[in-house]
Amino acid sequence: MSSDDACDCVVIGAGLSGLVAARDLRRAGLRVLVLEASPRIGGRMQRTRLECDAWIDLGGQWVGATQDRMQALLDACAITRFASPHVGRTVLHFDAQRYEFSGFFQGFPEGDAPAIDAAHWQDAMNAWQRFDALAQSLHGEYPHQNAHALKLDACSLAQWIDANTSTPFARWYFEYMSRAVGFLGPAEPHEVSLLHALWGQKSAPQAEHPEAQLMHGGAGQVPALIAAELDEVIRVDEPVVSIRERGDALQITSTRATYRSAHAIIAMPPCNAARIVFDPPLSSARQLLGAQMRMGRCAKVLLSYSTPWWREHGLSGLAMGNRPCIELVADSSDPSMSTGVLAAFVVGDRYARWIALAAPARRDAVLDDLAQYFGASARHPTSYHEVDWPQEPWIGGAFAGFMPPRAWTECGDALRVPHGRVHWAGTEIAPRWAGFFDGAVRTGEDAGRAVIDLHRASSHAKGKLF
Amino acid sequence: MSSDDACDCVVIGAGLSGLVAARDLRRAGLRVLVLEASPRIGGRMQRTRLECDAWIDLGGQWVGATQDRMQALLDACAITRFASPHVGRTVLHFDAQRYEFSGFFQGFPEGDAPAIDAAHWQDAMNAWQRFDALAQSLHGEYPHQNAHALKLDACSLAQWIDANTSTPFARWYFEYMSRAVGFLGPAEPHEVSLLHALWGQKSAPQAEHPEAQLMHGGAGQVPALIAAELDEVIRVDEPVVSIRERGDALQITSTRATYRSAHAIIAMPPCNAARIVFDPPLSSARQLLGAQMRMGRCAKVLLSYSTPWWREHGLSGLAMGNRPCIELVADSSDPSMSTGVLAAFVVGDRYARWIALAAPARRDAVLDDLAQYFGASARHPTSYHEVDWPQEPWIGGAFAGFMPPRAWTECGDALRVPHGRVHWAGTEIAPRWAGFFDGAVRTGEDAGRAVIDLHRASSHAKGKLF
Repeated sequence: MSSDDACDCVVIGAGLSGLVAARDLRRAGLRVLVLEASPRIGGRMQRTRLECDAWIDLGGQWVGATQDRMQALLDACAITRFASPHVGRTVLHFDAQRYEFSGFFQGFPEGDAPAIDAAHWQDAMNAWQRFDALAQSLHGEYPHQNAHALKLDACSLAQWIDANTSTPFARWYFEYMSRAVGFLGPAEPHEVSLLHALWGQKSAPQAEHPEAQLMHGGAGQVPALIAAELDEVIRVDEPVVSIRERGDALQITSTRATYRSAHAIIAMPPCNAARIVFDPPLSSARQLLGAQMRMGRCAKVLLSYSTPWWREHGLSGLAMGNRPCIELVADSSDPSMSTGVLAAFVVGDRYARWIALAAPARRDAVLDDLAQYFGASARHPTSYHEVDWPQEPWIGGAFAGFMPPRAWTECGDALRVPHGRVHWAGTEIAPRWAGFFDGAVRTGEDAGRAVIDLHRASSHAKGKLF
Repeated sequence: MSSDDACDCVVIGAGLSGLVAARDLRRAGLRVLVLEASPRIGGRMQRTRLECDAWIDLGGQWVGATQDRMQALLDACAITRFASPHVGRTVLHFDAQRYEFSGFFQGFPEGDAPAIDAAHWQDAMNAWQRFDALAQSLHGEYPHQNAHALKLDACSLAQWIDANTSTPFARWYFEYMSRAVGFLGPAEPHEVSLLHALWGQKSAPQAEHPEAQLMHGGAGQVPALIAAELDEVIRVDEPVVSIRERGDALQITSTRATYRSAHAIIAMPPCNAARIVFDPPLSSARQLLGAQMRMGRCAKVLLSYSTPWWREHGLSGLAMGNRPCIELVADSSDPSMSTGVLAAFVVGDRYARWIALAAPARRDAVLDDLAQYFGASARHPTSYHEVDWPQEPWIGGAFAGFMPPRAWTECGDALRVPHGRVHWAGTEIAPRWAGFFDGAVRTGEDAGRAVIDLHRASSHAKGKLF
């Protein structure tokens, strides 16, 4: 590509955020190129079709009613939603005891509580109340902007749990929230900053039910729908190696070519963007951010059955507990199909132990846990898919990146500041719904708008000369 | 390169470790290719010549008498050493007070102590004694192999300092040891695992004076001397993007070509190796290691003067203290030249604040501190070089990588385990003198030997067929 082929913006990363940015730039008339390192677009949004014709989401799947940017995108794509299956009893499996209860808890409980020791339950709920109150005391666009941020960021969530719970159940409950539900990226409590976990509850509140809806046909259909507007400008299997500012443009070198562009948008988790060489180099705060943020260690296992047979036993398909492998399972069956689908999650240290097993042992571990939650029928799925997100070369984890202690206060300021002509997008940097689809859409739109404004200002300035 | 051009081993990274490995492979008759991402070889070993003809080391410079692998390499290269300048009084600048004393302290004190409050001094020395005793209690090849490793690895060095010092001087003394002297990679005490810091003192003991010698002509001449044996097989400016195992060989793709090789040696800090895509993917422990290890945030500033004028004032040129910018300065003048050279270090949070300044303000900050240590003459160097190691694209920091809390016990086992046909080298993975030249030579030799053995075993097995 010669400089005559220069474009107005190169978008790096064809996940949801990058595709949204590229689409907006294109619609505004800018010359856009999208470079994606991996052989496929979509990032953490990916679906596959089962033999029975049902779609399953290998990546993210849920959307909440208040996630307005994602809701608008789904409307524009004419993708209809249905309520996540919730009729029936929830299962809790704690310390080898199994409980069924007509309620739900991710954060504050709704409906009935499981029949565990009342003092233990109360300990968990009291601690949650304190946690939520602390979370609500945060304000601003980002958590490190709070006066008491330094203190909250200096300790891990584990240290807070130690100081605020006195029973094994309460302790596990927060561990489960951190690992399986994930405060902006799933982490073991000792890995994650307390401030980060609190910010998760503030900026992506459980009370707004971020997992309330699923999509007919799966969330994984979205990338291709956006890409349909962009097809000839997306190049896959083309990692970017370096971005150099040269005169009034960027020189962007991939494994295949060097491109000239007025601007770039990097739509990748900050820790992955650190793989690119920048000249001039990134600020030291931005480098530190890249070195410190880590992707969640989370695998998703999808099991399908000819029917959602658990409903016959009065179960909703939602289960959680401190089993050796699976801490959270959710019914993900599309009501327009007869197939039953369960989505199960293996997170944190459980992931590390599980992924080290051979494939048959991994499957056995998953089926053992599901049988404990739902009964022996769980042992006979018609399909079984494991998605090992940490091993995905250009992604490195799921659902999202998280901040270890001190990272927010040390480098939070660098999260969104453009690096000259280089702008940032991606769910990790969203001020609201970070770690969710909505955060990806939001930051993609924002980055697109920023570049469009700069492009127009520059065209206008040039126009004046004639 | 077609498969006919296949080689026996591709070495990735042309720093000291990679060059040593490649040299040994070549000498054993193997077909070798060295791929270096940056435009020059040598990694953290680099020198430049001043107008006065003296050489200064922009990277590592010292060697200790007991660093036997590096000593042997220097002998083989016919590089002579001289004692680091040490005649004269040391300067300590603490809390705005300046002290001169005829001694030295990095770890246990030698010679006289500075005239600070005796109780504060004693607090520091007592704490150091406890720290050293704890360090000496470790055994084995790596620290996580100790029974009590988990406990020591779960807390940061900062937490140990809190519990074991009661005076500001003692606290700063450990901070200084962690930042400026560096326990296997310089870090702020809150960033680094206590186990890691202890292991530094055990496996690279201050008592053995690792900074006792300097090299005539500088350490930075070593890479080119080794490369002289390898010239036509080193390719610079060629980052490796992916390593795929295909049949009985590796397919190694750089930004320029794809190579076929029976083996590979990756001679890079583990956190940088994480930029390469592996198929099959790395073990989850190795990935976690790459995500957690961090390079030290350390810049080196070199100042030259027409003479080592500080000696006229009876000063050795060694100074340390809690100044805003420079915590450690050392005389690095070659006695065969008339030029005086000071090497000063800006580390950790001081680095982050300093590098954010404009160039004239950075220089002023350095000169202010040097003038406080040595007097106003320090303000007029004849040359001034800043080396911003964290911003070096393919290196990312200096002197070395360090482990945050829990990383050793979570992923220490993965440090040296080959990934199929991929072997590891680099100072970060050395069981002794990690973070020093010696660790680089040692692991380069080890990796070379492992591949040579495999190559011979395989040639032997093939030979039997005929």
